[in-house]
Amino acid sequence: MIVALAGGVGGARLAHGLARALPPDSLSVIVNTGDDFDHYGLRVCPDLDTVMYTLAGLANEATGWGLAGDTDAARGMLRRYGEDAWFWLGDRDMATSLLRTRRLRAGRPLSQVTAELAAALGVTATLLPMSDTPVATIVSTSAGPLTFQEYFVRRRHQDAVLDVRLEGVESATAAAAALAALAQAEAVIICPSNPLLSVRPVLSVGGMRAAVMGAKSAGAPVVAVSPIIGGRTVKGPAAGNLEAQGFAASPLGVARWYGDLLDGLALDHADAALAPEIAALGVRPLVTDILMRDAADRERLAREVLDFAGMLRGARP
Amino acid sequence: MIVALAGGVGGARLAHGLARALPPDSLSVIVNTGDDFDHYGLRVCPDLDTVMYTLAGLANEATGWGLAGDTDAARGMLRRYGEDAWFWLGDRDMATSLLRTRRLRAGRPLSQVTAELAAALGVTATLLPMSDTPVATIVSTSAGPLTFQEYFVRRRHQDAVLDVRLEGVESATAAAAALAALAQAEAVIICPSNPLLSVRPVLSVGGMRAAVMGAKSAGAPVVAVSPIIGGRTVKGPAAGNLEAQGFAASPLGVARWYGDLLDGLALDHADAALAPEIAALGVRPLVTDILMRDAADRERLAREVLDFAGMLRGARP
Repeated sequence: MIVALAGGVGGARLAHGLARALPPDSLSVIVNTGDDFDHYGLRVCPDLDTVMYTLAGLANEATGWGLAGDTDAARGMLRRYGEDAWFWLGDRDMATSLLRTRRLRAGRPLSQVTAELAAALGVTATLLPMSDTPVATIVSTSAGPLTFQEYFVRRRHQDAVLDVRLEGVESATAAAAALAALAQAEAVIICPSNPLLSVRPVLSVGGMRAAVMGAKSAGAPVVAVSPIIGGRTVKGPAAGNLEAQGFAASPLGVARWYGDLLDGLALDHADAALAPEIAALGVRPLVTDILMRDAADRERLAREVLDFAGMLRGARP
Repeated sequence: MIVALAGGVGGARLAHGLARALPPDSLSVIVNTGDDFDHYGLRVCPDLDTVMYTLAGLANEATGWGLAGDTDAARGMLRRYGEDAWFWLGDRDMATSLLRTRRLRAGRPLSQVTAELAAALGVTATLLPMSDTPVATIVSTSAGPLTFQEYFVRRRHQDAVLDVRLEGVESATAAAAALAALAQAEAVIICPSNPLLSVRPVLSVGGMRAAVMGAKSAGAPVVAVSPIIGGRTVKGPAAGNLEAQGFAASPLGVARWYGDLLDGLALDHADAALAPEIAALGVRPLVTDILMRDAADRERLAREVLDFAGMLRGARP
């Protein structure tokens, strides 16, 4: 079993590569749900849906999120009623949230509802929310505290991020299926998602970090793929977020951010010069092409990361 | 103030004619909400929306219900998830229900939410739900008891209707604004809606029939337009429903059904031979062309009915 930790678009793309590279039923993807929010009474789970649509081959490749060919009629009508409707939720995408909301209201846990939706779309990897308990990433910014989607979508991550807290995390435990997957993990892959805004929430829910450390102790290497190439984020505000937290916007900063969690880190050729310093931290560097331009790139990178993890695992005493 | 009682498509069309014929702010339309139901967690009010869209000039003229040019993407996605999704709710139409549901959940009464939605779409007539309390028309059929939409849409009103009951009617009172409108009504127009399935629910909520009778006592004539022409319903199962209740499928049956409520009844030239028998019941017949083919027809019929009501009002002692 390979376990991936993922946020949105970048995480979804590597998860897709891993799903293509691995046999069916041997990949579990644990996804950030700190971005989840209620919008027009619907429970919207942006990262779960991005990963689900990507794994199902239904994602809008241009944006990375949403469904290919989706339409925007419902939102147009909401605007006709004078609503702001700032969150882009296409008509088909809305159906996902509608169905999820109905099933959650009927008392089913998010992990079960997610499994049902993903199976209906033909996803063979195991898609897992980090927790069945709602938590909310609250971003402290120069403009005040904002929910994640207010910060990210409504205000287009223009505000400086001072800090992040996860509302409700005290009472949120990791989803049972996520802990079970980690207990039998041969490797844990931290996808190139935002370390502060996407991966930290995943690791913050009760029992998750301990389970990753447990997998590591049991011999499963923990390998991250850098979300930063040449000082810039492929997508989103990760570079600025790391700097605001006192870390360099580089693979070295990423290695330092994850600290003793990591056994290895994949970084881009553009950052090859940082490999010695990363190695000096006790993190094995894998220098390769980490930009995923298309599905072939995703699979190639996934295979390289899996081989790297296998090598690290084999090198263990 | 003219007050109209309406169900869905037929009611909406006459209401539209009345709105065109009358000055702004002098028409209140009290609409059946017995057909309302919860669908995918959304509060759907088919008759209210049909009347609202028609008055706003946004209705799908071919079907009579739904929005012109609406799309069906969300429902297609629901089906992809394995859902039956039998109720046609277009993408734009879904936005209406989404917004209504959110506002209802926030504690606002349906009459207020309806007024807000209608105003946003430019409706100048006052659109009123019969009650702010949810009630549900349950149809006893040869196939067992069915909710209205199961009977009407899902099973395409193919089952014989034995009886109808309005679940929750004991605790449902007429919306305050509906009673206020009736208290100042100069005429009450019962639209050509299904007498059993659409108008009876309106008259059944607490205080409504008494308020109509009160308006009548105060000099406001109550005039219905027959939903039956030449033994057939223009749209829907009204003919069969009347017969199953022991009434003729004709304007005479309609006059007998409404009984002492009516002062006048508009019927079609096709049924002119029944005028003497209708008159013998104490109901003044208006024989005219009652089929509404287009907006001009609606306005023409509305003017004739208003003139007829004015004549009846003037003839009162």
